[in-house]
Amino acid sequence: MKKNIKEQKKVYFFGGKKADGNSKMRNLLGGKGANLAEMVNTGVPVPPGFTITTEVCTLYNQYGKDYAIEAIKNEVKENMKKVEKEMGAGFGEKDNPLLMSVRSGARASMPGMMDTVLNLGLNEQTLQGLAMKTGNEWFVWDSYRRFIHMYGDIVLGLKPESKEDEDPFEVIMEELKEEKSAKTDQDLSTDDLKELVKRFKKAVKDQTGKDFPENPWEQLWGSVMAVFDSWNNPRARYYRKMHNIPDEWGTAINVQAMVFGNMGNTSATGVAFTRDAATGENIFNGEYLINAQGEDVVAGIRTPRQITKEGSVRWAKLAKISEEQRKKEYPSLEEVMPSIYKELFELQKKLDTHYKDMQDLEFTIQEGKLWMLQTRNGKRTGAAMVKIGMDLYKEGLISEQEALLRMEPDKLNELLHPVFDTKELQKAKAIANGLPASPGAATGQIIFFADDAEKIAEEGKKVILVRVETSPEDLNGMDAAEGILTARGGMTSHAAVVARGMGKCCVSGAGAVNINYKKRTMTVNGKEYKEGEFISLNGTTGDVYEGKIKTKDPEMSGDFGELMELAEKHTRMYVRANADNPRDAKVARDFGAKGIGLCRTEHMFFEGKRIIAMREMILANDEEGRRKALKKLLPIQREDFEGVFEAMQDLPVTVRLLDPPLHEFLPHEDKNQKQMADELGVSVDEVKTKVNSLHEMNPMLGHRGCRLGNTYPEISEMQTRAIIEAALNLKKKNIKAIPEIMIPLTGIPEEMKMQEDIVRSTAEKVFEEYNDRVEYLVGTMIEVPRAALVADKIAEHAEFFSFGTNDMTQMTYGYSRDDSGVFLPVYIQKGILKHDPFQILDQEGVGQLVEKAIIDGRKAKKDLKIGICGEHGGEPNSVEFCHRVNMDYVSCSPYRVPIARLAAAQGAVKEKASSKYEIN
Amino acid sequence: MKKNIKEQKKVYFFGGKKADGNSKMRNLLGGKGANLAEMVNTGVPVPPGFTITTEVCTLYNQYGKDYAIEAIKNEVKENMKKVEKEMGAGFGEKDNPLLMSVRSGARASMPGMMDTVLNLGLNEQTLQGLAMKTGNEWFVWDSYRRFIHMYGDIVLGLKPESKEDEDPFEVIMEELKEEKSAKTDQDLSTDDLKELVKRFKKAVKDQTGKDFPENPWEQLWGSVMAVFDSWNNPRARYYRKMHNIPDEWGTAINVQAMVFGNMGNTSATGVAFTRDAATGENIFNGEYLINAQGEDVVAGIRTPRQITKEGSVRWAKLAKISEEQRKKEYPSLEEVMPSIYKELFELQKKLDTHYKDMQDLEFTIQEGKLWMLQTRNGKRTGAAMVKIGMDLYKEGLISEQEALLRMEPDKLNELLHPVFDTKELQKAKAIANGLPASPGAATGQIIFFADDAEKIAEEGKKVILVRVETSPEDLNGMDAAEGILTARGGMTSHAAVVARGMGKCCVSGAGAVNINYKKRTMTVNGKEYKEGEFISLNGTTGDVYEGKIKTKDPEMSGDFGELMELAEKHTRMYVRANADNPRDAKVARDFGAKGIGLCRTEHMFFEGKRIIAMREMILANDEEGRRKALKKLLPIQREDFEGVFEAMQDLPVTVRLLDPPLHEFLPHEDKNQKQMADELGVSVDEVKTKVNSLHEMNPMLGHRGCRLGNTYPEISEMQTRAIIEAALNLKKKNIKAIPEIMIPLTGIPEEMKMQEDIVRSTAEKVFEEYNDRVEYLVGTMIEVPRAALVADKIAEHAEFFSFGTNDMTQMTYGYSRDDSGVFLPVYIQKGILKHDPFQILDQEGVGQLVEKAIIDGRKAKKDLKIGICGEHGGEPNSVEFCHRVNMDYVSCSPYRVPIARLAAAQGAVKEKASSKYEIN
Repeated sequence: MKKNIKEQKKVYFFGGKKADGNSKMRNLLGGKGANLAEMVNTGVPVPPGFTITTEVCTLYNQYGKDYAIEAIKNEVKENMKKVEKEMGAGFGEKDNPLLMSVRSGARASMPGMMDTVLNLGLNEQTLQGLAMKTGNEWFVWDSYRRFIHMYGDIVLGLKPESKEDEDPFEVIMEELKEEKSAKTDQDLSTDDLKELVKRFKKAVKDQTGKDFPENPWEQLWGSVMAVFDSWNNPRARYYRKMHNIPDEWGTAINVQAMVFGNMGNTSATGVAFTRDAATGENIFNGEYLINAQGEDVVAGIRTPRQITKEGSVRWAKLAKISEEQRKKEYPSLEEVMPSIYKELFELQKKLDTHYKDMQDLEFTIQEGKLWMLQTRNGKRTGAAMVKIGMDLYKEGLISEQEALLRMEPDKLNELLHPVFDTKELQKAKAIANGLPASPGAATGQIIFFADDAEKIAEEGKKVILVRVETSPEDLNGMDAAEGILTARGGMTSHAAVVARGMGKCCVSGAGAVNINYKKRTMTVNGKEYKEGEFISLNGTTGDVYEGKIKTKDPEMSGDFGELMELAEKHTRMYVRANADNPRDAKVARDFGAKGIGLCRTEHMFFEGKRIIAMREMILANDEEGRRKALKKLLPIQREDFEGVFEAMQDLPVTVRLLDPPLHEFLPHEDKNQKQMADELGVSVDEVKTKVNSLHEMNPMLGHRGCRLGNTYPEISEMQTRAIIEAALNLKKKNIKAIPEIMIPLTGIPEEMKMQEDIVRSTAEKVFEEYNDRVEYLVGTMIEVPRAALVADKIAEHAEFFSFGTNDMTQMTYGYSRDDSGVFLPVYIQKGILKHDPFQILDQEGVGQLVEKAIIDGRKAKKDLKIGICGEHGGEPNSVEFCHRVNMDYVSCSPYRVPIARLAAAQGAVKEKASSKYEIN
Repeated sequence: MKKNIKEQKKVYFFGGKKADGNSKMRNLLGGKGANLAEMVNTGVPVPPGFTITTEVCTLYNQYGKDYAIEAIKNEVKENMKKVEKEMGAGFGEKDNPLLMSVRSGARASMPGMMDTVLNLGLNEQTLQGLAMKTGNEWFVWDSYRRFIHMYGDIVLGLKPESKEDEDPFEVIMEELKEEKSAKTDQDLSTDDLKELVKRFKKAVKDQTGKDFPENPWEQLWGSVMAVFDSWNNPRARYYRKMHNIPDEWGTAINVQAMVFGNMGNTSATGVAFTRDAATGENIFNGEYLINAQGEDVVAGIRTPRQITKEGSVRWAKLAKISEEQRKKEYPSLEEVMPSIYKELFELQKKLDTHYKDMQDLEFTIQEGKLWMLQTRNGKRTGAAMVKIGMDLYKEGLISEQEALLRMEPDKLNELLHPVFDTKELQKAKAIANGLPASPGAATGQIIFFADDAEKIAEEGKKVILVRVETSPEDLNGMDAAEGILTARGGMTSHAAVVARGMGKCCVSGAGAVNINYKKRTMTVNGKEYKEGEFISLNGTTGDVYEGKIKTKDPEMSGDFGELMELAEKHTRMYVRANADNPRDAKVARDFGAKGIGLCRTEHMFFEGKRIIAMREMILANDEEGRRKALKKLLPIQREDFEGVFEAMQDLPVTVRLLDPPLHEFLPHEDKNQKQMADELGVSVDEVKTKVNSLHEMNPMLGHRGCRLGNTYPEISEMQTRAIIEAALNLKKKNIKAIPEIMIPLTGIPEEMKMQEDIVRSTAEKVFEEYNDRVEYLVGTMIEVPRAALVADKIAEHAEFFSFGTNDMTQMTYGYSRDDSGVFLPVYIQKGILKHDPFQILDQEGVGQLVEKAIIDGRKAKKDLKIGICGEHGGEPNSVEFCHRVNMDYVSCSPYRVPIARLAAAQGAVKEKASSKYEIN
């Protein structure tokens, strides 16, 4: 090995027209090295340089520094000569100095984990030459002091000893600034910087006992070895462990010439996009500055100019600048440097085509020569993502499948919900962060009570409903509000689930928000906000802002429709929606839902008379009393079902029988208990006694789901009757309803059997009464872990399974979703969990149960229909998992239907691809 | 088939010296038929009769009644002749009538599910002959009216139409009794009975249009067909479904001669045991009555006499009856009928040896001839079970293995705990029934508060502590009480777990008990009991009685010790105990525990100063504050561990780190919160705020177990330090401690990894400080379902697994043990569940997870030590399961150690047997 490596090429040149390496040599050259080589080979003018291979890192780790330097010394020198030739400058040459950067670059991206050294080659001599060239002495001294700081820190180890210690260079800098009464670094004069360099060098000498190295080669070797060293620093090690990157891989190192856009008026620097990152339009665009460094473009000190003339003219119009002034003060690159522009334009075209995606380019023009510093796939808005993807497909650059895979399903949210105005958002003050419970952006006045929210919204005002937690009693207020903010509760709390169903922005579990209902204030980090003050919510990120922020309504383009058609073409799994009422059902249908996967019946019991009858039933002491109350509920439920079935006509509707524990329907406050007692004509004591007797230590694991229907079969009977009668009534009107009756929370085959018996015998009774029939299915939720374990036996009594992965996650992890907010964030921060398992389905654990239940269930019943109706049914990673384990459908909240459809199609496309090729 | 069956023998005779069938023909003759044949073949004088095979039942079901009768007619007639010959009487013969019984008898026992008809052959003529023989006209008419009732009901179908309807014969009977002012059936005269028979017959004629059949053969065919019919009655069908008995099996029918012990002074009837059912001594014993029916012996109207002379003399002594009077009024069978006695004595010897177990015999002497009506393995006390089993083994009748298998492990409880005096118990009034939470019997005064219980017990009074639920604050009272009764809580509630640990009688979850702490009363079904009144508890059955009942203290015999030695010899799995203090540890060790499998640390935090420091820690707002409080707890914990380790020296002690949610350590009542605030020098508001912030919706699924240790690593650090320091301190005294540190509630491999790191690094630190080391293990509980699913990965960081099947049952079923008391009884009653899964481990569901975790865990780590520390570790069925899935040990409460040892041995014996022979 030792011998072998000696004979191997260890340094690879890139630059000019041809690189030694290419994009396939990722293992040897690292990701960055391979990309640089590829850019060069594509004909892009990249500042030249060379890559020291990962094998050298291994040598270094095995045999140490001296051995490693010896092994590459000659090759590095040869390559440096090539770089000098390309750049027309010399490394360490006084008048015409070539400066270099040294950067890590492993096989797998490890952003920010290893070290970088810039401006190698600067010393007391060469900085004179650079000052001449740039005509900017301040800049050069500033670069020099930065170089000493960086080198001193990384190579010479003058780092703070611990987090609490101060950086020794910072200490010196602050002292000087105090002496000079300089507020910022920029306030220091060139002379101040010279003084600073002196003090920095003294500190180096004091600490290391040696002078700061002036010899560029010494600087180079030191930097290269320090970067190799950084492969083994604690944060890099930790990152590798987290991402399963083997320690043996090692990093490559890229030593590259530095170029400067601030070398006078034939120099410039800029950033550009091959397509519009906001709209996705196929228009080259970007900004630049003459005689400037990269940072200047984004720093906002000088107003950047537009690259294209068209862009410049449009910009001037928006900024209300006359054409004359524009031409004078803000001319485009196209006008100022037409030939460079032409070269840049061709290049961007080439890169866009080569990478088959919108590119985000960084370039520098140094003394009339264009250099590309970076090209990468550009970040974009959701709308742009769809447009660009579909355009690339139509342009023939990518296939249908590739177009589908290019989309990030979650970004479709931006097309479905309002978003903040980007400019205004930059100025906004974030005051808290919660869970991104339901996407979208909203601005409105803080209101704490649902009824107030409804009233104030009726006056045409915009409202944010702010609650500790929401309950079904808050539905009217949630409906009236622009957005909902809760201090407690997770991704599957009441607020979150209902808001997603409504397509309404919601931030939940914002722990920093302290609400005082009595004073009608909320306090965040010591600052008090009164009812009526404005706040803004970003439900996509979970951010809460002070004051108003302008929002933009979503627009759905034709591209979106075409994308959905593509998804439809490639998907195997179909998508249903979770919806409890005709309105949500219609939304879902418009988004392409193929039915309802979860129609909860409990929400139907809360309004007006219903809750009275419901409470009467709960208060009843015997079956007779319960039946009497249920008789009152029957026509109400039947009507509800008729509405939902009609909205979903010809498509199946899965109705889940009563699930929550009965105490959820009883009032817990004295006032409301009194009211209930009056309404039902019983004593308050009776109400209180019932409330107490129904109290549970762990309601999540209590008397709910089919445990209710099996202790009180008359409830299941009534609900079945309502469902079947509704379907039969619609049939008379020639409307086809396809009910699927779903039993919640089964864990024992006999439990399911008993419920199946009740449903089937009730249905038969109703058929007889109507002298007519409808098709219907009986199935169950699989949510209790035990149900997954005995799925084969449960399948004997079920025509379909629907996975309730919310509850299954709770029970499989032993996490109450109402309480885990205390430790889940800590667990994610400490790296114990990668994600919140309530957001992204835990494939490692919960997934095993899901997969086992599917395999065993289908073994027992070949044509068992299988879906998911937990909140994971709308989360892209989870949807792909559902595809892989062969579910028939996923069901999610209406506004996530398009996202689920896209993710389902991606799952299918990936599966086909992996069956064709071996996937790494 | 139809032809084939015609040629087969369909009726099998038994009686005399030889039966047509034998014990191996169970499928054809049913269980009862095969047993009768075996008895005959063994030489036992059984009243003769014949068995109609199960195949006839199949014929009957397929081709109907007429076909079936035709198919067996001739065979039945031939066999009836044999019976007549044996009995010296004729079927339907006026002066010397032979009466027959018709009973069902399927392959598998289905007790009480099918019908029986007795006294076939009685009619207006034959009853005259019987009256002459018995000299008891009343008895004969009474038998006749019973026969008409039974036959009318079963064969002729004069049944009540539904549960609400009245039995038509009962209605007639009640009318007559009213007319005759007869309070009981016995008050009716012979003439009244004749009138009753008249009216019964009229009812039959009115209802069926036919006369009641006088012809014995018509009676016989009707009865046989009715019994075949009863194979398909709803309760039999339901029973078969529950017990997986195929419908196709069908039942056989046994037609057998009836014998009468009331045919004058040469007739008698009695019951006998081949050994003493109370003590197990090998002494023949029993009771008899001259000229009596079987019921008379047990009915208590006449005082039964002893069978043996020895027994009779002893009995007379106890009853203070002179020898003279005894001889005259209560002579033994041995004295009265010496030759019959001799025959009986030989027979019982033969049967005891043949069945190799203590037999419970029923016999009748009819006119000087002895008939055995039944022999079966006799019921016995726990002490008798041990003595008989060990005696049989020593007598060479059964092997060591067989002796072990003969024991019912749960019955050992009677040897370990007090039991009620049997006689007094019969007179006691049961007022409620709860869960048999901890075995034993107790009598005492009702006391509602722990402190009072302690005081009153100190006065030498016996106390039953009665609480809605118990909490750690009640420990002193529980300790002082004879027994504990709670209105709420299951088999694994605080009361149940602690009581079992103390070996103290406890009935939990007695829902009928309503406690009013203010009034200091408890009300049961409307009756109020004041504090100070006496009640009695049977913790083995869950029964609660009014008043005092004498109890008997347990005695452990030498047989018990020998049995434990046998168990030790044959077991593979060893047994540990769950114990938190030196006292329990000692009890466990004395019972043969091989270490502690679960030492909970949280109970250590409740007393005196400890709870103050604990609360200080909880109240702390940062790590520093927590560390300060933990420092106070360290020496206390260390001392506790030293005590436990010393009691268990040389044996391993598994210490579980802190498990319950922190709010369990905070007071929830205003008064106590005030006290806590004063003690800690903080405001009441601060306490209340902390209590509220720690409140959880579902504490079972909340911030507990290793989630605490991972959010507050300093807690795990302190506990580890206390454990390791304790072990090192003992080492200085030459006492060997073997700590096994157990992490609770892991569900994610990274969780375990993090805790392992904390434990190991802390231990190393302590070793360094002490400049000495001890051996220790780090392992985890497997209780969260997810832990079982990813057990291979968790095993990488664990040296042992201990299954926490309490919590695993909760999460796998989704049942909160605190709340499931509402629906579990309903589920068991409805047959959805066969057992309470908190009592008997659910092998079908939870068992899958356990088995998977063991297999996967050992795949990852071959020598992984595996045990169970859930309450199931002391339940015999569950212990056998643990053996089958290859656990190394089970751990249970100290008083269940012998039971677990026996069950473990049984598991091993059964496994060896099944590896030798094929087991059905």
